[in-house]
Amino acid sequence: MEFVKHLPVWDKLTPSQQELLQKTCIAKNVEKGTVLHDGSPNCMGLLLIKSGQPRACILSEEGREVTLYRLFEYDICLLAASCVMKSVQFDVTITAEKDSELFIIPPHIFKRLTEESAPFSNYVNDLMAQRFSEVMWLMEQIMWKSFDKRLASFLLEETALEGSLQLHTTHEAIANHMGTAREVVTRMLRYFQTEGYVRLSRGVVEVTDEKALRKLQ
Amino acid sequence: MEFVKHLPVWDKLTPSQQELLQKTCIAKNVEKGTVLHDGSPNCMGLLLIKSGQPRACILSEEGREVTLYRLFEYDICLLAASCVMKSVQFDVTITAEKDSELFIIPPHIFKRLTEESAPFSNYVNDLMAQRFSEVMWLMEQIMWKSFDKRLASFLLEETALEGSLQLHTTHEAIANHMGTAREVVTRMLRYFQTEGYVRLSRGVVEVTDEKALRKLQ
Repeated sequence: MEFVKHLPVWDKLTPSQQELLQKTCIAKNVEKGTVLHDGSPNCMGLLLIKSGQPRACILSEEGREVTLYRLFEYDICLLAASCVMKSVQFDVTITAEKDSELFIIPPHIFKRLTEESAPFSNYVNDLMAQRFSEVMWLMEQIMWKSFDKRLASFLLEETALEGSLQLHTTHEAIANHMGTAREVVTRMLRYFQTEGYVRLSRGVVEVTDEKALRKLQ
Repeated sequence: MEFVKHLPVWDKLTPSQQELLQKTCIAKNVEKGTVLHDGSPNCMGLLLIKSGQPRACILSEEGREVTLYRLFEYDICLLAASCVMKSVQFDVTITAEKDSELFIIPPHIFKRLTEESAPFSNYVNDLMAQRFSEVMWLMEQIMWKSFDKRLASFLLEETALEGSLQLHTTHEAIANHMGTAREVVTRMLRYFQTEGYVRLSRGVVEVTDEKALRKLQ
């Protein structure tokens, strides 16, 4: 099965563990916008990303949201298996930001492998530490970096992801990504515009001075 | 050796793994203020807390610091073993806030056990998820920031109403008053307790630092 090359720990599993995975791993395509995980007691399991772009975020009670991290081809989405990891006591929402192709290791199989196989458990540990590191990075951004630097980083990241300096997005959407109010984003974007870093038009933020943004961040 | 009762996974280790630990685990006393971990390439290893109070924090370049979490008797300090977990890519500083008695499992022994033993590796995973959860909780507080202020106000109001710093109430009752879940209240009260704002006992919340609560709200 094709999923094998998406699971780096494959070679360290026993033949019977490999057989178990062959039998139980599911291929699934999901459309852009599909909620893959929402912290409910049921969860999908370990998601291997063949293509697409899942995004993990936290939501406030008022519906504000902050992007924690994004996953790409060959990444593995660990927290969609959180229902079988009792010490994971926080909720993240994971949504497919683009049409995605996934391989899914069901929760009970995931649990069995972590219990049986030290290499598999070590690999899970690795994944957990990676996500933990991403969240720590974000937290440091939020704690220490002023908003102009964060917004510069955000715009550069988005242009890299889109492969274009023209971002079709709204101030509202940027505010949601960054966990702040729309007005804060609008004010800073206008400042960026007066500095010549960006050009604003309806539904578009165009980066006009990438170098300056890079210097700022 | 006494450290055995500080390591919940002990019974799931093989006799030879137990023997290895008996031979290599070190007892160490450190004074208040000792830096146990600072993100340098060398690290102490897995620290089992016999007594004392290590505190983990992040530092900004300007020297500002934010407490991530505190550890108490019977807790285990995982991140002091981060030099052998290559995916942990962030720095925390861990300092003994009180004179502390520790048992130390050296880094290379820690690494060998995670590689050899699925139960030990699972346990490490558990610890990682616990610390991750604590950081996520803190991040949500920082992002949405309302509940700690609301709870501080509520407690001050109640003490004024009762004419006493000892509130005879339950977490459930407070949750009902505040329109939130009991777990949310419990979590925040425990945080307040580690900060020394309140003391919790069965059916009682005692405000021990009114001034701090006043400042917080």
